[in-house]
Amino acid sequence: MPDADLSGGDLALVAIALLISLAALGFAAWLVRAVLAADQGTASMQEIAKAIQEGAGAYLRRQYRTLAVFAAIVFGLLLLLPVADGGLGTRLGRAAFFLVGAAFSAAVGFIGMTLATRGNVRVAAAAAAGGHRPAFRIAFRTGGVCGMITVGLGLFGASLALLLFRDTAPIVLEGFGFGGALLAMFMRVGGGIFTKAADVGADLVGKVEAGIPEDDPRNAATIADNVGDNVGDCAGMAADLFESYAVTLVAALILGQVFFGPVGMVFPLVVAAIGVIASVVGILASNPGSNDRNWMSPINRGFFVSAAVSLVLVAAASFTVLPTISDGLDIAVSPQVLGFLSVLIGIVLAAAIQQLTGYFTETSRRPVRDVGRSSLTGPATVILSGISLGLESAVYAALLIGTAVYGAFLIGGAAALYAVALAGCGLLTTAGVIVSMDTFGPVSDNAQGIAEMSGDIDEEGAQVLTDLDAVGNTTKAITKGIAIATAVLAATALFGSYNASLIDALDDAGTELGDALTLVSPNNVVGAVVGAAVVFLFSGLAISAVSRAAGRVVFEVREQFRTHPGIMDYSERPDYSRVVDICTRDSLRELATPGLLAVLAPVAVGFGLGFGPLAAYLVGAIATGTLMAVFLSNSGGAWDNAKKMVEDGAHGGKGSQAHAATIIGDTVGDPFKDTAGPAINPLIKVMNLVALLIAPAVVGLSVGEDANTVLRLAIAIGATLVIAAAVVVSKRRSSVVGGETDATAGTLTTSAP
Amino acid sequence: MPDADLSGGDLALVAIALLISLAALGFAAWLVRAVLAADQGTASMQEIAKAIQEGAGAYLRRQYRTLAVFAAIVFGLLLLLPVADGGLGTRLGRAAFFLVGAAFSAAVGFIGMTLATRGNVRVAAAAAAGGHRPAFRIAFRTGGVCGMITVGLGLFGASLALLLFRDTAPIVLEGFGFGGALLAMFMRVGGGIFTKAADVGADLVGKVEAGIPEDDPRNAATIADNVGDNVGDCAGMAADLFESYAVTLVAALILGQVFFGPVGMVFPLVVAAIGVIASVVGILASNPGSNDRNWMSPINRGFFVSAAVSLVLVAAASFTVLPTISDGLDIAVSPQVLGFLSVLIGIVLAAAIQQLTGYFTETSRRPVRDVGRSSLTGPATVILSGISLGLESAVYAALLIGTAVYGAFLIGGAAALYAVALAGCGLLTTAGVIVSMDTFGPVSDNAQGIAEMSGDIDEEGAQVLTDLDAVGNTTKAITKGIAIATAVLAATALFGSYNASLIDALDDAGTELGDALTLVSPNNVVGAVVGAAVVFLFSGLAISAVSRAAGRVVFEVREQFRTHPGIMDYSERPDYSRVVDICTRDSLRELATPGLLAVLAPVAVGFGLGFGPLAAYLVGAIATGTLMAVFLSNSGGAWDNAKKMVEDGAHGGKGSQAHAATIIGDTVGDPFKDTAGPAINPLIKVMNLVALLIAPAVVGLSVGEDANTVLRLAIAIGATLVIAAAVVVSKRRSSVVGGETDATAGTLTTSAP
Repeated sequence: MPDADLSGGDLALVAIALLISLAALGFAAWLVRAVLAADQGTASMQEIAKAIQEGAGAYLRRQYRTLAVFAAIVFGLLLLLPVADGGLGTRLGRAAFFLVGAAFSAAVGFIGMTLATRGNVRVAAAAAAGGHRPAFRIAFRTGGVCGMITVGLGLFGASLALLLFRDTAPIVLEGFGFGGALLAMFMRVGGGIFTKAADVGADLVGKVEAGIPEDDPRNAATIADNVGDNVGDCAGMAADLFESYAVTLVAALILGQVFFGPVGMVFPLVVAAIGVIASVVGILASNPGSNDRNWMSPINRGFFVSAAVSLVLVAAASFTVLPTISDGLDIAVSPQVLGFLSVLIGIVLAAAIQQLTGYFTETSRRPVRDVGRSSLTGPATVILSGISLGLESAVYAALLIGTAVYGAFLIGGAAALYAVALAGCGLLTTAGVIVSMDTFGPVSDNAQGIAEMSGDIDEEGAQVLTDLDAVGNTTKAITKGIAIATAVLAATALFGSYNASLIDALDDAGTELGDALTLVSPNNVVGAVVGAAVVFLFSGLAISAVSRAAGRVVFEVREQFRTHPGIMDYSERPDYSRVVDICTRDSLRELATPGLLAVLAPVAVGFGLGFGPLAAYLVGAIATGTLMAVFLSNSGGAWDNAKKMVEDGAHGGKGSQAHAATIIGDTVGDPFKDTAGPAINPLIKVMNLVALLIAPAVVGLSVGEDANTVLRLAIAIGATLVIAAAVVVSKRRSSVVGGETDATAGTLTTSAP
Repeated sequence: MPDADLSGGDLALVAIALLISLAALGFAAWLVRAVLAADQGTASMQEIAKAIQEGAGAYLRRQYRTLAVFAAIVFGLLLLLPVADGGLGTRLGRAAFFLVGAAFSAAVGFIGMTLATRGNVRVAAAAAAGGHRPAFRIAFRTGGVCGMITVGLGLFGASLALLLFRDTAPIVLEGFGFGGALLAMFMRVGGGIFTKAADVGADLVGKVEAGIPEDDPRNAATIADNVGDNVGDCAGMAADLFESYAVTLVAALILGQVFFGPVGMVFPLVVAAIGVIASVVGILASNPGSNDRNWMSPINRGFFVSAAVSLVLVAAASFTVLPTISDGLDIAVSPQVLGFLSVLIGIVLAAAIQQLTGYFTETSRRPVRDVGRSSLTGPATVILSGISLGLESAVYAALLIGTAVYGAFLIGGAAALYAVALAGCGLLTTAGVIVSMDTFGPVSDNAQGIAEMSGDIDEEGAQVLTDLDAVGNTTKAITKGIAIATAVLAATALFGSYNASLIDALDDAGTELGDALTLVSPNNVVGAVVGAAVVFLFSGLAISAVSRAAGRVVFEVREQFRTHPGIMDYSERPDYSRVVDICTRDSLRELATPGLLAVLAPVAVGFGLGFGPLAAYLVGAIATGTLMAVFLSNSGGAWDNAKKMVEDGAHGGKGSQAHAATIIGDTVGDPFKDTAGPAINPLIKVMNLVALLIAPAVVGLSVGEDANTVLRLAIAIGATLVIAAAVVVSKRRSSVVGGETDATAGTLTTSAP
């Protein structure tokens, strides 16, 4: 393992990366100004937007207050946990950078969302003024802010750590990645529950029971629904992409040091810096031209321009920064070729996932058309066809990702893990554009909501927003596919660090790894089964949390209709803030169980069953998690677009039996695609990082002179009991709500499906 | 590895086991006579029963003709594949016993189903004559025939192989297990598609479109629905349990030889023979007493009596047959204690799964009540609550199974794999009773169908059959849980053989295993992801096959209603046989793709990526498969019983919106619980056995003097292409049906949900 300190040239490159990260933040500020300069629309629009802003801001503030306590506890635990290599300074640095990572993740979410809640009304105003192009531009630039902050802060944190800590930076960065991933997971879960509780609740009581359209101002849940788009799809997603970016960089830095020493750490930063430049170019290139036939075209152009720029610059960087020959490593190609080809694999993978996801979720392609057609035989066949579509599409995505990992493995030879990590960096060179196009979704969706509720828009303007919203559905599905791919690449690469950490710790204890990590031992098979089980449990908990919270929303809205009969004839105004409050309280309460599960399950397995089963646990979780994440996202996306297809006139159009069947499909898909599915990406990373962080402690308590079976099992049992208690408490909640639902069963005035 | 030949005492024990297996078949014959002696009911009942018998018989004959070709090809391939140990005789024996295993699996299915189609009408007649007890007794004894043949033929095959081949018997038995598992998988998939295509099709066009009740004679799909119960739930399930039994025994024999020599092979046979005795006692004990409060009681009694008898006899056998001390093996307890505790773990696991499954699927317990209550907010919440219930219950089942494996691992020490295999044998000591209670389900269901269609039954008699049918739903869910547990135990144990086989083959090639099987290598992570992917693809294909075939059934029934308007007023009789034909043809056509996937995917991974990724592939498949199987089975079971709960009057009862919502849930659950879910059990075993069979060939082509990269990759690419072609062909079929559905969209007269 080459372990020399960074040379002057290396430091210069890191400093340049730091400057580029600051430039990214500067570009974000420029985009903010451009967005805020746009017209804010009518007074009515502004009033609605203000309600959304306040609800979203209040939610995030409460969420951050809750999570701050949690972060403080984890900070304390990190100070206690031994590090594999390095002294107290490293340990302190790792804990401090955990806070930095968490704070950055929170900041990305907060800033992105704050701007989204300003951008939405401006998009609505631009659409009302009649232009596709200005509306598109504002929406995309709002997303661009999010994108640039994501890449800017990620690169800033990584290069700062490298400048400050030099050769112990990789360990410090474990903290950075963990902080980012942990916050992101909570924001994904909490935001996901909020947004879908409001959405499902609004649909059930509005569209289905009361027979009023979506985003109708008479529905007390509409503001909550729009707040949800911001806190879930926007803040949650931005934090998630930030952690993907950070964790992938961290993995590459750790492994770069192992295989190539200082230059191995610097190269991933250079790739990331190139990604920043490519993102700026891509965002600027996404300007709709006069001969763009559909609104996906400028977005695709932005993506492919960004990918092309990355490719050229990465080729140049590989052949300048990396050495031509490697010392004593058994790799088939030169480090330069290795670097270039690995990053190339990542870039190609991003493009391939984009195409594949598009195929399975776009309204014009066969799979969604088939789901739409199944609506002719009712809701059951809609559900079945969406589920089999999701299951199958997950397989193709998994095979694509698998092919990329295997390709990197073949190229990398002895440095295979580094090649895998670099492929992850390649995947993320287009991150700026990807985040922009993802944020585009909720901003357009919100703009449509604001326009609809204000009533200040004509048919032409409404069509602009409908078009943008449909594009947003597809871009959201693509981002989820790319996010889960980063999870697999980063997790696979981090495995190498786990292995190295075990070997170090075992060495300290005077023993060897042996075949503790063999696939064919019964205890390891059990570990894999438990890992897969955690993914199932996490998904089940997230889905049932949405059902419970939505039940409470339904109850509240029904109650408002009952006690304020004037709402229906517009003579009374519903109390929107009560539903926002319910969603806020419930989602913060409900995120605890899946959150604790993610953090404590690896602790229970590691201390209880050992480090072999813990590795197997991670393999089980990665394998199952990848498939489950894509399955949930694509089924949900396909149902959503099948509904849009029917609403556009297929199979009887709006109000037909087919439409009712696809609404049911869409409602089932909501928590699939926006709560459970996307949260699996940070889940995998959190579990991997927890495993990495506890590895030295697990080994220390298992073998050698500090071995302490009682303490080890006490930790495992404690962790298990906390998870079990959390699950039991969340079940008890379910029964209370059940009671409420029963009590109001009589008020079901349903006419629909 | 003690490798001495069997002693005289050992051989005597094997001979006794052989005699006990023949006695089991004798007891089955006695039960057959008892069932056939019962009254056959009215002429109308007999006529309907005859139609079901003919349809079911015709299907199985066609299926066997198709599968015979496939079996012949596999037989040829097995002759070509090298064996790790032993000469041409062993290779021939393995191929021959493959045919024996396949034939036995087919025979169990055929005999069990033939008797079920005789038992059903007799149960209906007994119920019409007014007695719960006689009806129950006939149904349970019909199941008993199936149970005794399963255990009889399984034990017969294993002891015969041991008598004939002595120390090479384990390799020969790989063929036996593979034959059984392969046939069972095809029967599970084909039967599962048949039964659910008919059921879903009948429901969609009957209950939903035409508004006529279930099992109404005007519905042309009713006979096919009843035939389906027999070929899927009965023949398919019996073959599946047979292979579970055979494969578990095979795993125990292989590992017994490795760790304890001849006595290690004999002991599992003794345990199995004890299971036969326990099953006879259990079946006789399942006679309903006069103070049984509900109809689950006698079944539970039978199960627990059987478990208790096994426990006592196994304790006695462990301390007589097994040695007190082991040579040179590092195990913490004596072989006697190891044997007893391991079998005990299996018996306790069976009981625990029974309780857990009951909790999640019985109408009286909270989970199903919650799903039922969610029907008040419509079909979407029914689907969501059923899915989260399924996901969560899968986790508890997986943790139970994991705990059992880990317990066996701790007890077994160096012989951990043998302990795991013995736990599998313990699980199956109650197999006779389990098969009986499972077969009870379709027989009761059929009896209800026959009674309903014939019209020759009063209300009291109908209530008898409804009660028995509800019990059947729960017993079916329990069997599925136990079957998947056997898959995990057997597959984990077989892993040991895989490892041993690799080491042998590598040794022949002059090299060592090294860390090729490490969990932390990227290529192995890819293997695990692909293994998980195959489970998803298999499930998706099975579900979409049902949707396609059901679509054709809907089309045919609609066509009959249209061209024969007299059907509705009973003046014309629908042509039942056309629907039976459609189901037969379609299910045989549709089973090819999932079947090829199961056999060829491990071939592609093994030859393409290597033996390390193949091991990881199996781990991924076991982990994901366990969870997916339980998820699909329990979601489906819960939806079915939630519907029954509403039909019994909850939440508005029959005809309410809540009822419509639960019918949708049940329809979604049909292919979950009866097609995709249960087929995962044989899928896992088939893939494990294929891996075991090809291991020497994979190693031979990868390393040493016979290494041949071109041939190796050609095999992998060939296998991949065949799978891809099969998937593409099945997709193309989907589009043809889509066209048909579209063409008749105009005839949708739907009024319901």
